Amino acid sequence: MTSDRPIIGFLTDFGLDGAAAICRAVILSICRDAQVVDICHTVPKFSVRQGAHLLRAALPWFPAGVHLAVVDPGVGTDRRPIALRTARGDVLVGPDNGLLIPAADALGGDVEIRELRNPDFRLPVTSSTFHGRDVFAPAAGHLAVDPAAFERLGPTVDSQTLVRLEGGVARLSAGRIETEVSYVDSFGNLRLAVAGSSLEETLGGSAGAAVRVTLGASFAGTAVVASTFGDVPVGALLVYVDSSGDLALAESQGDLARRYGADVGTRILIEAT
Amino acid sequence: MTSDRPIIGFLTDFGLDGAAAICRAVILSICRDAQVVDICHTVPKFSVRQGAHLLRAALPWFPAGVHLAVVDPGVGTDRRPIALRTARGDVLVGPDNGLLIPAADALGGDVEIRELRNPDFRLPVTSSTFHGRDVFAPAAGHLAVDPAAFERLGPTVDSQTLVRLEGGVARLSAGRIETEVSYVDSFGNLRLAVAGSSLEETLGGSAGAAVRVTLGASFAGTAVVASTFGDVPVGALLVYVDSSGDLALAESQGDLARRYGADVGTRILIEAT
Amino acid sequence: MTSDRPIIGFLTDFGLDGAAAICRAVILSICRDAQVVDICHTVPKFSVRQGAHLLRAALPWFPAGVHLAVVDPGVGTDRRPIALRTARGDVLVGPDNGLLIPAADALGGDVEIRELRNPDFRLPVTSSTFHGRDVFAPAAGHLAVDPAAFERLGPTVDSQTLVRLEGGVARLSAGRIETEVSYVDSFGNLRLAVAGSSLEETLGGSAGAAVRVTLGASFAGTAVVASTFGDVPVGALLVYVDSSGDLALAESQGDLARRYGADVGTRILIEAT
Repeated sequence: MTSDRPIIGFLTDFGLDGAAAICRAVILSICRDAQVVDICHTVPKFSVRQGAHLLRAALPWFPAGVHLAVVDPGVGTDRRPIALRTARGDVLVGPDNGLLIPAADALGGDVEIRELRNPDFRLPVTSSTFHGRDVFAPAAGHLAVDPAAFERLGPTVDSQTLVRLEGGVARLSAGRIETEVSYVDSFGNLRLAVAGSSLEETLGGSAGAAVRVTLGASFAGTAVVASTFGDVPVGALLVYVDSSGDLALAESQGDLARRYGADVGTRILIEAT
Repeated sequence: MTSDRPIIGFLTDFGLDGAAAICRAVILSICRDAQVVDICHTVPKFSVRQGAHLLRAALPWFPAGVHLAVVDPGVGTDRRPIALRTARGDVLVGPDNGLLIPAADALGGDVEIRELRNPDFRLPVTSSTFHGRDVFAPAAGHLAVDPAAFERLGPTVDSQTLVRLEGGVARLSAGRIETEVSYVDSFGNLRLAVAGSSLEETLGGSAGAAVRVTLGASFAGTAVVASTFGDVPVGALLVYVDSSGDLALAESQGDLARRYGADVGTRILIEAT
Repeated sequence: MTSDRPIIGFLTDFGLDGAAAICRAVILSICRDAQVVDICHTVPKFSVRQGAHLLRAALPWFPAGVHLAVVDPGVGTDRRPIALRTARGDVLVGPDNGLLIPAADALGGDVEIRELRNPDFRLPVTSSTFHGRDVFAPAAGHLAVDPAAFERLGPTVDSQTLVRLEGGVARLSAGRIETEVSYVDSFGNLRLAVAGSSLEETLGGSAGAAVRVTLGASFAGTAVVASTFGDVPVGALLVYVDSSGDLALAESQGDLARRYGADVGTRILIEAT
């Protein structure tokens, strides 16, 4: 934390019709100087997995700070609201449902976790359906004002007890990658549940090589190992290491997901030819 | 108004393709230090009613300040552009078509209203089709710089002459609530045109009670009185007091509006069983 | 450039799922005080033309500053990344594919252009697929901190060598305008590829006059020359000079583009009756 204006990355599945703005207003009411940066508010509803993916992709590019994420199908139940301090020096605020873990791992792992129980860091009246506004945003605002507030948020939480998401399918062998789609971006490019380095490990990965690709039950054909879209003709398929370091599959200047009905979880097979 | 950076809440039906950004740029050209907070720019086109609803739901969570709202099918006609001072100390800027009234009421009611006639607080050239940019944003920017500019905006407007929206249907009797959908949020939850307190008044409202619900002509069945989504199984219907204090109807982790084709204005009947 | 907080207008086709936020985070990591103003991130994918149009419509309303635009189907190929200084004092940062030119022209034209080759103004590691994050956003951030960095970005580029977009069809004669749709806004209004002044030049342009309008092959009928939507009945067609100074065609409180399937490039004929 520096004397600079604090930056608060902010991700939800609230959509664009005002709920995220209300949270932002609550943060600014507590920390008038905060720069709240909207990462995404159109995470597919209740998709903790996709929210976790986007948060992990985004936060390493942010300055260390307080960051807020709310995809929370369990709002109002006994799932724990938490704040998680990372090795890099961030504090991630959100529900204990797996949403924060991949980002925390990308930021060096968790070093201390607190449950948000202290009413001093909530709004005076807490609804049962909007903890983004009443519990999470106030905590983020107070932490942005005073990082030392972390110690007073509530009892420590054992990292081993955190809810964690299942990882995606990722089976690697010589000449073969069996995995699944972990995220479909807005271009329709398919991010896969294996690291980009798996390409080199299993398939050699030399640029220009042709590989056989199978997308669920809807497509089987050839793609080219490439480093960027412009390396292949418009409409051709490419396998590449994307900007998050994950393996990815795309159609140059096309929407691959829409063309073949691919979505998160669609099985992908990439084989040497 | 404090020495803090002024916060300007901002709501329109302009969509996401640049018009709201142009207004924001105009505000920042006048008040470089403003923090403009986008509440929503995807209000359904020309829906003054839904814009008014969202503004009323959001502004109580903002610090008192200058706030700007433009849903303005009458742009360029003789509808009045106004600034409305609230009892809480806000100034709401927008067209006199009912858009600002519910929010003003939620902020303590109007205490003084001015028509935006003084050309010193408009852009030098005023188009006929984009008063957001040429009339409303400049007024908001000048008010953020100098709250005393309010007196110089133009002539006072009699509150009795303001255009007001019709309220939604709301007929309450023992064991029965007849109302309509006032807003469909991005989750597909239905906000109703009655206060949450009506549940207790008419139906007793004890958590866990079953009620009979009729949605227009497309659904009749049972819902459970609950305080949050997780209180009922996934896919079950619940009646609850939502985070704005309104009565609401939802499907746990589902999109109720889409499932039954409900929209703003759909009649809703809730009856004791 | 003043001592005020620098304003950075920002336009992409990245969508709403985090990529634009990552660029914003990179900018803020370099220039913590920047006010990044999102112009639009939902430019139709790869549509350099529509991106250029929106940028040209928006930037004249911004204070002179550093502005960033990325619609970049050629990312990772040998298309040049550039920074372009305008006569008004802006620096526009983006790919050399025509995206920046209409805006530059609207800001007085280019006075100096640099290719972004100096690695000091890129991220340490540069991906092949996300130059928005790795090349363009860092350049914008550094320029916002220190305008004099412009000289050190890389070699100068001859303005004559810049890639330029083809203009749209615009054939004017007495009593007749033959043109095409250059942009469809979120209301479904059609912005045309001719200046608003062409109305007066060719058709006299007196308000209230009826003209014959042909939209591609899907509509032929009458529209009224008007100055704003409210001048004609709801549902009637109007020809008007829009808020960007372009000629435009709309249906009062309706979505003309959707009704007749009009899109960018649809031919439009406007004739005296």
